[in-house]
Amino acid sequence: MSSTTLTALLHGPDQKGLVARTAAWIFERGGNIIHADQHRDEDYGVFFQRVEWMPGDAETAQEMAAFRAFATTLGMEVRIARGSDRPRVVIFVSKQEHCFHDLLLRWKAGELPCDIRCIISNHNDLRRDADHYGVPYYVIPVTAATKSAAEATALSMIKADGIELVVLARYMQVLSGDFLEQLGRPVINIHHSFLPAFAGAKPYHQAHKRGVKIIGATAHYVTPVLDDGPIIQQAVAPVSHRQSVDDLIRKGRDLEKTVLAQAVRWHVENRVLAYANKTVVFD
Amino acid sequence: MSSTTLTALLHGPDQKGLVARTAAWIFERGGNIIHADQHRDEDYGVFFQRVEWMPGDAETAQEMAAFRAFATTLGMEVRIARGSDRPRVVIFVSKQEHCFHDLLLRWKAGELPCDIRCIISNHNDLRRDADHYGVPYYVIPVTAATKSAAEATALSMIKADGIELVVLARYMQVLSGDFLEQLGRPVINIHHSFLPAFAGAKPYHQAHKRGVKIIGATAHYVTPVLDDGPIIQQAVAPVSHRQSVDDLIRKGRDLEKTVLAQAVRWHVENRVLAYANKTVVFD
Amino acid sequence: MSSTTLTALLHGPDQKGLVARTAAWIFERGGNIIHADQHRDEDYGVFFQRVEWMPGDAETAQEMAAFRAFATTLGMEVRIARGSDRPRVVIFVSKQEHCFHDLLLRWKAGELPCDIRCIISNHNDLRRDADHYGVPYYVIPVTAATKSAAEATALSMIKADGIELVVLARYMQVLSGDFLEQLGRPVINIHHSFLPAFAGAKPYHQAHKRGVKIIGATAHYVTPVLDDGPIIQQAVAPVSHRQSVDDLIRKGRDLEKTVLAQAVRWHVENRVLAYANKTVVFD
Amino acid sequence: MSSTTLTALLHGPDQKGLVARTAAWIFERGGNIIHADQHRDEDYGVFFQRVEWMPGDAETAQEMAAFRAFATTLGMEVRIARGSDRPRVVIFVSKQEHCFHDLLLRWKAGELPCDIRCIISNHNDLRRDADHYGVPYYVIPVTAATKSAAEATALSMIKADGIELVVLARYMQVLSGDFLEQLGRPVINIHHSFLPAFAGAKPYHQAHKRGVKIIGATAHYVTPVLDDGPIIQQAVAPVSHRQSVDDLIRKGRDLEKTVLAQAVRWHVENRVLAYANKTVVFD
Repeated sequence: MSSTTLTALLHGPDQKGLVARTAAWIFERGGNIIHADQHRDEDYGVFFQRVEWMPGDAETAQEMAAFRAFATTLGMEVRIARGSDRPRVVIFVSKQEHCFHDLLLRWKAGELPCDIRCIISNHNDLRRDADHYGVPYYVIPVTAATKSAAEATALSMIKADGIELVVLARYMQVLSGDFLEQLGRPVINIHHSFLPAFAGAKPYHQAHKRGVKIIGATAHYVTPVLDDGPIIQQAVAPVSHRQSVDDLIRKGRDLEKTVLAQAVRWHVENRVLAYANKTVVFD
Repeated sequence: MSSTTLTALLHGPDQKGLVARTAAWIFERGGNIIHADQHRDEDYGVFFQRVEWMPGDAETAQEMAAFRAFATTLGMEVRIARGSDRPRVVIFVSKQEHCFHDLLLRWKAGELPCDIRCIISNHNDLRRDADHYGVPYYVIPVTAATKSAAEATALSMIKADGIELVVLARYMQVLSGDFLEQLGRPVINIHHSFLPAFAGAKPYHQAHKRGVKIIGATAHYVTPVLDDGPIIQQAVAPVSHRQSVDDLIRKGRDLEKTVLAQAVRWHVENRVLAYANKTVVFD
Repeated sequence: MSSTTLTALLHGPDQKGLVARTAAWIFERGGNIIHADQHRDEDYGVFFQRVEWMPGDAETAQEMAAFRAFATTLGMEVRIARGSDRPRVVIFVSKQEHCFHDLLLRWKAGELPCDIRCIISNHNDLRRDADHYGVPYYVIPVTAATKSAAEATALSMIKADGIELVVLARYMQVLSGDFLEQLGRPVINIHHSFLPAFAGAKPYHQAHKRGVKIIGATAHYVTPVLDDGPIIQQAVAPVSHRQSVDDLIRKGRDLEKTVLAQAVRWHVENRVLAYANKTVVFD
Repeated sequence: MSSTTLTALLHGPDQKGLVARTAAWIFERGGNIIHADQHRDEDYGVFFQRVEWMPGDAETAQEMAAFRAFATTLGMEVRIARGSDRPRVVIFVSKQEHCFHDLLLRWKAGELPCDIRCIISNHNDLRRDADHYGVPYYVIPVTAATKSAAEATALSMIKADGIELVVLARYMQVLSGDFLEQLGRPVINIHHSFLPAFAGAKPYHQAHKRGVKIIGATAHYVTPVLDDGPIIQQAVAPVSHRQSVDDLIRKGRDLEKTVLAQAVRWHVENRVLAYANKTVVFD
C-alpha cells in the first residue's frame, strides 16, 4: 500500500453517473475512498467533486497521471495532490503584523500543511520577527515610480522558487493586473470588511460612519478588479455605538487573523474550487 | 412613592457635569436612579443619556413636565415616558408572514411592551390570522395608480388612532417621501441583507450571485433614501455553496424575525436614539 | 424515470470499497446520485453513509426492497425513504407555547417535510391555537397517580395512527423508561441548557446562579437516562450580569425554537444517525 | 487639569441615591465623568459601579485618597486606579504555547494596558520566544516532591516584584489552596471547556465522547475549588461528528486565545468585580 493519500479536485459539465464512475475507477485499482464530497451548481450545470483516497500498490506519480487521464475522459478539469505534498507559499506583508504572526505561529504549530518559503515586504519592519521564525525575509520597496520594477522582482523570485500560492497578509499595495496575469497562480487576500460592503480603502472608517452593528473580514482570491474576487471565507463580530474606529480596528484584527488562516488552510488542503467568481469549499 | 418608573432619553451638545446634574436633579426631588447609561460621540460633540428612575411623591405627569423643563435648561432634547406606557403601534404587512407571526406571538407572550393597535396590509391573506390574534386587520390595496390615495388613507388612520410607531414587517411597498414627511413618526423596517451590502430588491438573489459566505438582516429607521436609514440592529448566519437562493430565503427568515423583534423591543422600551444617520442603542 | 428521489441512511462495520460499491449499485440500475455523504468513526470502526439518488425506471417500492437486500449483503443496517414521504409526527406540549407555535408555523410554511398528525398535551391551554392551525388536539392529563394510564393512552394513540416520530416541545413530564421501550420510535426533546451543563430541572436558574456568560439549548433523542441522550443540535447566546433569570428564559426561548426546529427538520429529512450515544448529522 | 483619568470600582449594600451622590462628589471637586455604569444585584441587594472621570486640579494621589474616604462614608468597598496605571502581571505557562504567544503579541501591539513583568514556567521550552519578546523567563520545575518548594519560590518572586495579577496561560499545574491564600491576589485561568461542563482533565476528550455540537473555553478567577471560580468570559464554536479530538483541540486553541485575552484586558482595565462566585463585567 502507498504511504500517502491522494486528493483530487474535479469540476466540469454535469452528467449522469459521475460519482459512481469516479468511485469505481478508484476501487478497481485497489484504492479505498477516505472522504468524498461533491456539489452540483444548478445555475451553471457544473459538477464539482473532492475525493481523497488511499491508492493501491501503484507508485503515486503513476496513479496521479492515470487519474488525470481518467478525468479527461470524463470531460473534467482536475487538480490532484499527495496528502504529503506541502505547497510552496510566499507571504506578502507591509507594517501591519497581526496576520503575519498568526500565519507563522499556526504554521509552526502544524496547523497549515504548506511550506512557507519566504516573506516579501515593502518595509523592513518585520525582519527581526521573520528571523526568529526562521523564514527568509526580502524587502522590495514600492513607490509609484518603482512599482513596475518591484513587481518584476517579486515575479522572478516567485517563479524561481516554484511558489504555488501568494498570501497577502495585510499587504498595502494593490497588485497590478499585469502582475496577476504573468503570475498565473492563486493569490489570497484578506479584506477588512464583510465584502461587498465597504470595498476599497479604510473599511473600518466607512463602517463606523455608516453606523453598522456588525463588522467583518473577508478572505478572497485576488482578481484584477479590486476587492471583487471569489470569496473563500468571511467572519463577523458585533459592534455598538460605543466602539470608536480604533476599537473596530482592534476587534477586526481578530477576525482578519482567523479568516485568513482558515482560507489558507482550506486552500493548501485542496478544499477550494473557484468558478463564476464564487467558491466551492469542501470543508 | 409613584407606582411607575420614568425613563428619559436625552441628547444635545456635550458639556461638563451633565451626568452629575441629571443625577442631582432626580435625587433632590426624592427619586432613585435604577439605570443610567450615557455616551459621548467624539466626532460630533454630542452627549446622549438614558436614565430610568423611580420618582418621589410627585404626580408623574407633573414630574415629566418638570424634567422636560430641566432638560431645556441643559440645552438638551428629551423624550420621556412612564414605565407603564405602552406605545401605540401599527404593523404593515404584505404576504410574507413570518415577521408578522413572530411579532404578534412575542407581543402576546409579553415580550413587547407596546399596544399593537392594528395591522394594515395591501393584501387580504393574513386576515384570518389577525382575527385569531384579536387584532384589527385593514386592507388598503396599493397599485401605481392608487398609491397616493392609499397612503393618504393609511396616514389618516394612523393619525386618528394616535399611532406612535409604524413597523414594516416585510411590507413590500416603498413608502413615499411625502408620506414619511407627513407621518412625522418613526418607521422601523426590516431589510433582508446586512446593509449596506445588497440594498434594494432581491437581496438574497444578489447574495447568492456574489457568493458571500454570510447572509444577514438589518432593522433600520426608514428615511426617504431607500434602505439607507439609521441601523438599529443586524444579525447574520453562515452559508455555503450548498445553499440555494431558496435556502438563503429560509435561513434569512429566522434572522429577519429576531432582528426586527429586537429593534421594536428596544424602540418601545425607549432605548434607541437616532442621529447623524446612526443609532445609539442603550441595551 | 421515477418522480421521486430515494434517500438511504446506512451504517455498519467499516470495510474497503463501500463508497464505490454503493455508487456502482445505483449506477448499474440506471440511478443517478444527487447527494452522497459519508463518515467513518475511527474509534468504533463504523462507516456511515447518506445517499440520495434519482432511481431509474423501476417502481420505487421495488427499488427500496432491492436496496435493503443489497445493504444486507454489505453487512449494513439501512433506513430508506422516498423524497416524497412525509413522516407522521406527534407533538407533545404542556403550557409553554413558543416551540409549539414555532413548529406549527414552520410546518405550515413548508419548512418541515412531515405530517403533524396531532398534538398531545397534559393541559387544555393550547386547544384554540391547535384548532386555528387545523391540527387535532388531545388532552391527556397526567398526575402521579394517573401517569401510567396516561402513558398507555398516548401509546395506543401513537401506535394506532402509525406515528413515526414524537417531538417533546417543552413537554413538562418525564417519559418513563417503560413507555420509551414500548414506544420503540425516536423521541426528540428540547432541553433549555447547553447539555451536559445544567441537566435536570430549572436550568436557567442553575445558569444564573453559576454566573455563566453563555446560555444554550440542546435538542436530543430521549433515552431512559434524563437529559443524557444523543445530542442532535445545540445553540447558544451570550448573557451578562445584567440579565435576570427572566431575561435568560426569554432569550432562551429563541434558542429553543430554532434548535428544536432544526433537529426535527434534520430528522424528517433522514439526515441523522444515532450511535454510541452520539449523532452523525449529514447536513 | 490632571493628565490622567481615574477609574473607581465600587460595591456594597444598595441604598437610595448612590448614583447621584457619586456623581455630585466628582462634579463638586471639578471632575468630569467620562463613563459611568452601575448594576444592582436584586438577589443579594448589592450595588456595583464603575465610574471613570477626569479629575479637577488636585493631585491624583490626593484625589484617590479622598475618593476612598468618600466611598467609606457610603459603606462601599472601592478599588481605584489611574488611567495611566499599568498593573504588574506575571504569566504562568507550561508547554502549550498558543495563549502565551497571543498574550505577548497583543501586549506588544498595545492591546493590554499592563506591564508583563515576567514569565514563569515549569519547563524550559519557551525561553527563546520569551527572549525574543524581551520578557524575563524563569523556570521553576514542579514535581510531586518539589511542588511545595516550587510554589514558595514563585510566591516570593511575585511578592518581591509587586505583581498584581497572575495569568495561567494553559499552565498545567494545579495551584494549591495554600498558595492561593498566601498569594492574596487575583489569578485568571483559561479552562478549555464551556464550564461547568467538562471541568477537570481532558475536556476536549470528554466533549468528543459526549458528542456535543458546540465546544467552548472559559476564563475564570481561580479559587481553591478546581475549575469552579467566578467566570469572566466564555466563547464557543460549533463542531460536528467530523471533528476528531485533535480537531477540537485545534479549534479550541482559537477560543482559548481570545477568551483569555479578553478576560485579562477587562481585568487590567478595571472592569471586573467578583462576588458570590460570579462576576460583574462593565464592558
